[in-house]
Amino acid sequence: MEKLLVIKVGGNLLDDEPAIERFISDFSAVPERKILVHGGGKLATQVGEKLGIAARYHQGRRITDEPTRDLVTMVYGGLINKSLVAKLQQAGCNAIGLTGADGDMIPATRRPTGDVDFGWVGDIDVAHVDAARVRSLLESGLTPVFAPLTHGGGFILNTNADTIASALAIACSPSYSVRLVFCFEKKGVLADVHDPSSVIHRINSSAYRQLLADGKLKEGILPKLENAFAAIQAGVKEVLIGDGTDLSKTLGDSPEGTLIFA
Amino acid sequence: MEKLLVIKVGGNLLDDEPAIERFISDFSAVPERKILVHGGGKLATQVGEKLGIAARYHQGRRITDEPTRDLVTMVYGGLINKSLVAKLQQAGCNAIGLTGADGDMIPATRRPTGDVDFGWVGDIDVAHVDAARVRSLLESGLTPVFAPLTHGGGFILNTNADTIASALAIACSPSYSVRLVFCFEKKGVLADVHDPSSVIHRINSSAYRQLLADGKLKEGILPKLENAFAAIQAGVKEVLIGDGTDLSKTLGDSPEGTLIFA
Repeated sequence: MEKLLVIKVGGNLLDDEPAIERFISDFSAVPERKILVHGGGKLATQVGEKLGIAARYHQGRRITDEPTRDLVTMVYGGLINKSLVAKLQQAGCNAIGLTGADGDMIPATRRPTGDVDFGWVGDIDVAHVDAARVRSLLESGLTPVFAPLTHGGGFILNTNADTIASALAIACSPSYSVRLVFCFEKKGVLADVHDPSSVIHRINSSAYRQLLADGKLKEGILPKLENAFAAIQAGVKEVLIGDGTDLSKTLGDSPEGTLIFA
Repeated sequence: MEKLLVIKVGGNLLDDEPAIERFISDFSAVPERKILVHGGGKLATQVGEKLGIAARYHQGRRITDEPTRDLVTMVYGGLINKSLVAKLQQAGCNAIGLTGADGDMIPATRRPTGDVDFGWVGDIDVAHVDAARVRSLLESGLTPVFAPLTHGGGFILNTNADTIASALAIACSPSYSVRLVFCFEKKGVLADVHDPSSVIHRINSSAYRQLLADGKLKEGILPKLENAFAAIQAGVKEVLIGDGTDLSKTLGDSPEGTLIFA
């Protein structure tokens, strides 16, 4: 099967102009078919403060009230997404900027109100991602660039970028040999969170269970690993957790970072 | 040839919530293949004021400095475009929100600085619009929704929505029988600008020359008519100038509004 890279970059990279430039250059040079998913960065908070939109949180998670929904639609779907597309085009990568709403490619529903109403937040219907549509864009030479937004009931919904990347990787796995890459601010999964050089380079399911049993994994990395193994179990060939600021090292056959596989 | 509608809606409609709802419903019900191009509306000015971005003009035309470029990227490419997509999806229309930068579908260059530097403004390269790509989206059942933005040199460029609509209509004319529709706040081209009922229902080239010779056309409508006849001369079958708030009347075989043809 042909290879497909699904790369998620987070806010820390998007907030750093030289890092973006380097990423754009490295990403555009990747010869394989590829999809980029971006997070939000500090930009939404900065623009929101200027607009007088107060950030409200519940246990560290932001609540997407109506002004915040419009804010992330502007900043994620407009400013960040289209600026990335313009830069990628300039670097020779035929990017197309999308949200999950476009072509209804990533169906979602507004999260039901439980103890807390998180507002205009989307939960993805992973089983119904329109893989045929995504494949058709890829096969026509385009590189989809997804903002972390979906839609439901006629409105845009704020949606987790990691989950969008996972959902796309899973949906494309029957057609491609998919490597899902989560770029973040560390070099990979660390055996010792205080030692940046202690990257664990390969983790399979049994090693994961052992690491869990040993209590070696700290809270910050746990959701990422759970997400990664969920993707592997759903058919994604491999997941890489690594450093987005040096993509050339992250994407080789002997990648730096942590490679997750079955 | 199969029919294609290219409909441009302007700011006056986008600023009026009930008018948008009605437009979305009417537009979604159109059975033919269709493209929507939207303008900006007052929203960009309102958001800009809150963000402290001062609007600068030269002879009535806004100058797109860097903060304004980012503003229109947010508001046109994000808030307006993606909100329209979410509404259209809800109404059963499989919309995909785009700018000219996406897939490099509408190539442009930054306007050269003459006596005045209009800033980050794009001039479209009409001859190189990627009609094959647009057709491929249409034939796969999608309805492209274009924001008035293009790109050049790695940056988003603010671009006239009427010109984007014309360029798309012209590019698609070899493949489709194209009706280009400019929706605006009047019922059509008026013989007497003070009498809303004095709509001229049909204007061909010779009638246009006669109207010009008689001095009956006021300044506001002249650029629209020039634009319309330029499109006709470039292969567009017909151009309709009419009222976006009642699309069902504007789109029939005997449309209200002013029909422009060769």
